[in-house]
Amino acid sequence: MPLPVSPLAPPSYPDLPPIAGVRFATAEAGIKYKNRTDVLLCAFDEGTVVAGVLTRSKCPSAAVDWCRARLGTGRARGLLVNSGNANAFTGLKGRSAVEESAAYAAAALGCSPDEVFLASTGVIGEPLEAQKFAGVTADMAGRLSGGPWLDAARAIMTTDTFPKVATATVEFDGVPVSISGIAKGSGMIAPDMATMLSFVFTDAPIAAGVLQGLLQPLIDTSFNAITVDSDTSTSDTCLVFATGKAPTAPIVEAGDPRAAVFAAALGDVLHELALLTVRDGEGATKLVTVTVTGAESDRSAVRIAQSIANSPLVKTAIAGEDANWGRVVMAVGKAGEPADRDRLSIAFGDITVAENGERAAGYDEAAASAYMKNQELEIRVGLGLGAGAGTVYTCDLTHAYISINGDYRS
Amino acid sequence: MPLPVSPLAPPSYPDLPPIAGVRFATAEAGIKYKNRTDVLLCAFDEGTVVAGVLTRSKCPSAAVDWCRARLGTGRARGLLVNSGNANAFTGLKGRSAVEESAAYAAAALGCSPDEVFLASTGVIGEPLEAQKFAGVTADMAGRLSGGPWLDAARAIMTTDTFPKVATATVEFDGVPVSISGIAKGSGMIAPDMATMLSFVFTDAPIAAGVLQGLLQPLIDTSFNAITVDSDTSTSDTCLVFATGKAPTAPIVEAGDPRAAVFAAALGDVLHELALLTVRDGEGATKLVTVTVTGAESDRSAVRIAQSIANSPLVKTAIAGEDANWGRVVMAVGKAGEPADRDRLSIAFGDITVAENGERAAGYDEAAASAYMKNQELEIRVGLGLGAGAGTVYTCDLTHAYISINGDYRS
Repeated sequence: MPLPVSPLAPPSYPDLPPIAGVRFATAEAGIKYKNRTDVLLCAFDEGTVVAGVLTRSKCPSAAVDWCRARLGTGRARGLLVNSGNANAFTGLKGRSAVEESAAYAAAALGCSPDEVFLASTGVIGEPLEAQKFAGVTADMAGRLSGGPWLDAARAIMTTDTFPKVATATVEFDGVPVSISGIAKGSGMIAPDMATMLSFVFTDAPIAAGVLQGLLQPLIDTSFNAITVDSDTSTSDTCLVFATGKAPTAPIVEAGDPRAAVFAAALGDVLHELALLTVRDGEGATKLVTVTVTGAESDRSAVRIAQSIANSPLVKTAIAGEDANWGRVVMAVGKAGEPADRDRLSIAFGDITVAENGERAAGYDEAAASAYMKNQELEIRVGLGLGAGAGTVYTCDLTHAYISINGDYRS
Repeated sequence: MPLPVSPLAPPSYPDLPPIAGVRFATAEAGIKYKNRTDVLLCAFDEGTVVAGVLTRSKCPSAAVDWCRARLGTGRARGLLVNSGNANAFTGLKGRSAVEESAAYAAAALGCSPDEVFLASTGVIGEPLEAQKFAGVTADMAGRLSGGPWLDAARAIMTTDTFPKVATATVEFDGVPVSISGIAKGSGMIAPDMATMLSFVFTDAPIAAGVLQGLLQPLIDTSFNAITVDSDTSTSDTCLVFATGKAPTAPIVEAGDPRAAVFAAALGDVLHELALLTVRDGEGATKLVTVTVTGAESDRSAVRIAQSIANSPLVKTAIAGEDANWGRVVMAVGKAGEPADRDRLSIAFGDITVAENGERAAGYDEAAASAYMKNQELEIRVGLGLGAGAGTVYTCDLTHAYISINGDYRS
């Protein structure tokens, strides 16, 4: 019984070009789901570097542990991802399972297991039967190709209702460099240093250390700026693979002016993937941008924005198309960050609903209610204290979220 | 269209005795609701002392500001409470409204406005028309009596589906001392130093400073240990009034052995009122006790218990009677507190579901699923790190919560 596709799904998908040095295949390994792909195997040409950001959960999955131990090398030849089982909280069995999984992938790809990165998403606490990969990895290795990327995005979905892809191209000295990424995620989304799962591929020639340095701040304004339900996954993983196949001089230091150009494009891809994840938030019918300005610091602004974006009362009001700005006041008040009630202003879109600590003089309930019927909403809060600003993206909280999570064992 | 009474409502209410020195009346002032009482006026005999704990929200209501400014005196002669309007985020109008409200109550009771305490609960951001009290306070002052307390508890309800009362009696040198309290609260419940509204009355002779000192730690294990939806109100107020009418020697210092006896009984009343609030959590069908032991500190244990008790995924699983302990692992992991995945144990009631970082060897899904059908559930988490322990009480997250909050402008 598939879930209906989110009303916030994009009407169409961009064409993602093949990335030189990256080939992949998908398969049905029968991890949990029936009649759908659930494994993705990627092969990277020699010389590919990797950077990544992983969940800060104190209960990370075995795959996260595996990646964390290997990111330091900066070298990657393969990526094996499965959906249906997170291999999280699986103890020694989980550690054996990642070793076996990497071995199967390495044998199929002809590389060392230490050059294989792993990610798993799905049910927590159920041992992952790694031998199920044995039946499909060799076959997948024989079918590797440069596309279509939508197939890769579909193989890693769990409660997602649509595949998530994004792409960007920059030019270095007239040479085009491509960045393409995929992501999955729908519930248990309040990433803390990464999302559920996202993989980005580029043919840029760039040193692993430079790539890692670029990635972290971009995560803060993309995956770390979204929330569906305030719940942070055990499996959050964002990995960026750079094959270096674009025929242009390599970026070997952060000060290279091309690094900033590349970072901007990479940031666009990550931001788009993060927003697609909110658009597929479990039960979502509204995409909400919460922007806080005038805070004592950027960090404080983000925390207040998170307090608003995670508030069940704010999110249910949005679901009900109720311009209930009193709940925004509540969420500002509970955030534990500096705020002065009597300087606070709140706007829904361009409609100022409150200012100077009370309802705006010209407040028009009918206009505010009409605004709430939009599918994409902005909540803007001004604190009037300083120059700190931050934005968090969220969705509404609907009956469908309850239905999905009262039944689905994820 | 009244909400159906919570299935977790108590089957009956205790008889609350009159408290010597306390009289009250209720009235229909038409603040917002029709055909129900919405104002409570209490009169205290001369010599009554007061202690209180108020919300830590940075956007407190005007009534909270009023009480905070007057708690220092420790003296009270009156209490005026209304439901239907929180008088929060109402700017200068809110400040005028509390001054007017206190003046009306003081005139009716024959005391100074500074001896009148105020509390308001309901919609945020809507100016409170204090003159509505003018029509009822004199009449109420003519009808003051020592009961029935259920009438007082009903007058302060908003989305509550049942009135909340609790009582206890202790003896000092053979003299009975009574403690009786009322509370309201159903949504926007994650109190931070108090609940929505709770008022406790006693005839104990006790100095205001001693009472205040006793109260704070009792709040931490009662109202500060509950959560319905992680949203902290602008109006949280707990006030304890002691008339000193019991004919026994006054407690004037914290070291008096009777202070501990009194504190235990007061704690029981506060704890009962707090649990009644969870039992009336919006949409609640299950009462859940989350206990964390083995943490590095008590504070750390409480934070991890809060992370579990506030997790939408844990709460929807409970609503679905799904023994989804993987989501408990997730919530421990995201709490940001010290935890070692591989020492973690989790039990549902007496059923150990996970230990040493993986599913328990003898885990019986059928037994765990059967346990989840109970109306009252225990989730016990052992961290294996230290001696810190803490307990938080919560309820499940159901369709009814979405329905109530997608429509109700509170």
